[in-house]
This record gives sequence, C-alpha cells and structure tokens, in this order.
Amino acid sequence: MVDAAPLPLHRAIVRKEWVDYNGHLNDAYYMVIFSQATDAFIDYIGMADAVRRETKTSIYTLEGHINYLLEVKEGEEVEIRSRLVRHDAKRMQLYHEMFRPGHADPVAAAEFMLLHVDTTDGAKSAPFRPETAARLREIQAAQDVLPPSTYSSRTIGLKPKA
Amino acid sequence: MVDAAPLPLHRAIVRKEWVDYNGHLNDAYYMVIFSQATDAFIDYIGMADAVRRETKTSIYTLEGHINYLLEVKEGEEVEIRSRLVRHDAKRMQLYHEMFRPGHADPVAAAEFMLLHVDTTDGAKSAPFRPETAARLREIQAAQDVLPPSTYSSRTIGLKPKA
Repeated sequence: MVDAAPLPLHRAIVRKEWVDYNGHLNDAYYMVIFSQATDAFIDYIGMADAVRRETKTSIYTLEGHINYLLEVKEGEEVEIRSRLVRHDAKRMQLYHEMFRPGHADPVAAAEFMLLHVDTTDGAKSAPFRPETAARLREIQAAQDVLPPSTYSSRTIGLKPKA
Repeated sequence: MVDAAPLPLHRAIVRKEWVDYNGHLNDAYYMVIFSQATDAFIDYIGMADAVRRETKTSIYTLEGHINYLLEVKEGEEVEIRSRLVRHDAKRMQLYHEMFRPGHADPVAAAEFMLLHVDTTDGAKSAPFRPETAARLREIQAAQDVLPPSTYSSRTIGLKPKA
C-alpha cells in the first residue's frame, strides 16, 4: 500500500560547495537536491540502477520547473516530499516540495517531466514495463485524493510591459 | 549599442564532477551552467558583485524552467546566448539557450524570473536603480525585434490521464 501523503523519499544536508558567499544554498544547487529526489523516486518505482542496466531501460528528464520560496543555509537538513502528478504509457510528471524538517512551509518546489526509454540500441522512448506501470498506477491512485499542488504546472511570465 | 542577437555572455567546459556514469552532463548541472550565465548577465547590466555590495542591492531568483534537448559530454564546451524577454520596475524575465559552438540546435534552454532587492535591512523587493533600468530598456529595445523564443513561457503538463 502506498500512503496518500507525498512520499518523503529523500533527505540532504546543504553542503559547503553548494552555498554562495552569504552561506545560502545557491539557486542551481536546489536543482541538484531535487534531482537526487527524482533518483530516489525512480528507485521507489522499482527502477534502481541495477534494474535499469539489466532491463536496458532508463529515465530521461525532458523538462523541469522550480520555484524558490525561502533561503536555506549551509549545514541545514532538508527533506523532499514527492508526488506523482500524472503519468501516461511512457511519461511521468513528478512534483517535489523541499522542507526543513519540522517547518510547515516549503523552501522550494520543483516539477519534472520524465520519459521512459529503451537503451537497447541508443535511447528510444518506450512504454514502462508492466511491473513499473502497475507501480505507477498504485502510487497515482493513492495520491489522487490529495489537493492540487500549489506550484504545479506553473508558467514563467511577466505581463506584457513595464 | 546592444546587438539585436541573443547575447553570448558565458561559456563553460563540462566538468568531470558534473557528469553521470555515462559521461553525460547530469540534468541538475545544466542548471549550474545556466546560473553562471545569469550571473554574467547581471554583470552585463552593471550589477557586478562589487556594485551590488556598494549599492546594497541584489538579484534573487524567484522561478526557473528548463528544457533538456540534447546530451552533452564531459570536456565539451558550451556557449550560452541570453535574451531579456521582458522586465518591469523590479523584475526581469531572462531566457538562455545553450549551444555547442558551431552547432545550430540548442542542447538546452532555460528561463528565469529574477527580482531586484534592496539589502539595506534584510532583503526587500525594490525598483532597479535608474542606471540599471536604462540598461534594461536598451537591451529590451535591441532584442524586441527577435522572434519569440521556442522554449519561453512553457508549462509542464500531461493531458489528464493515461
């Protein structure tokens, strides 16, 4: 059974090499942590590295979106909670929020469109294997009861003109 | 005078610590290079580090979006070309494309919403200083003749349901 709540699959400590001169997590390195959380989700759906090699499959990132909400300092721990927004035969839309443990407001949110590929001969988009598809349906069904995520499906844009 | 073409303000060589086990630039590290390109643009509008300290101003990243288009390998050089999509009194929407020199197709595109802040007492959103605003208007005027960018103002989303 998958819990209805977003999945807390990854934690990280903000490293010295990830911060700016003010000691705050640099904007680009939020993405490094979110990418690690995506890897944790890929493990969770049964596609860990060894499985990907054995089945000659992989997951490619097509697109990403990030919202920066609060600052995080060197040495702080953050937890990522993840939701499967939607999926189809080959793609999944994955949403993460980053929290300081014990705080209610996220420090950042990120969303990714990911593609399943067959690496037998180069890399071609391919349907998820049946066991992966079943796992995704299970997660989706459990999480569909959640309200929409605040920072999902956002578009960057200023209204035309200063 | 600012040229009408996107501004080639940053180049980077793909580092060993940025690649995955296949030797390809890891998705999160495209963002590190784009963030460096944003820094180069901030220098270009006359807000280099020394100026930001002296004027007690800074630029915060509010939001980012990235499209992954092609793979890039360790040791390859990439060039970023940048456009100011739009700006208002306090914000700017900046768009970058990443190229392998000599290749016509971008390997990635990214867009950011950036906020000008006054750091006198914490960090509060504040209008650009007059000289910065003038510089932004100059760049905007030069680049407004360009056709819309392919990967600007994108939204992540799968149509409801597999």
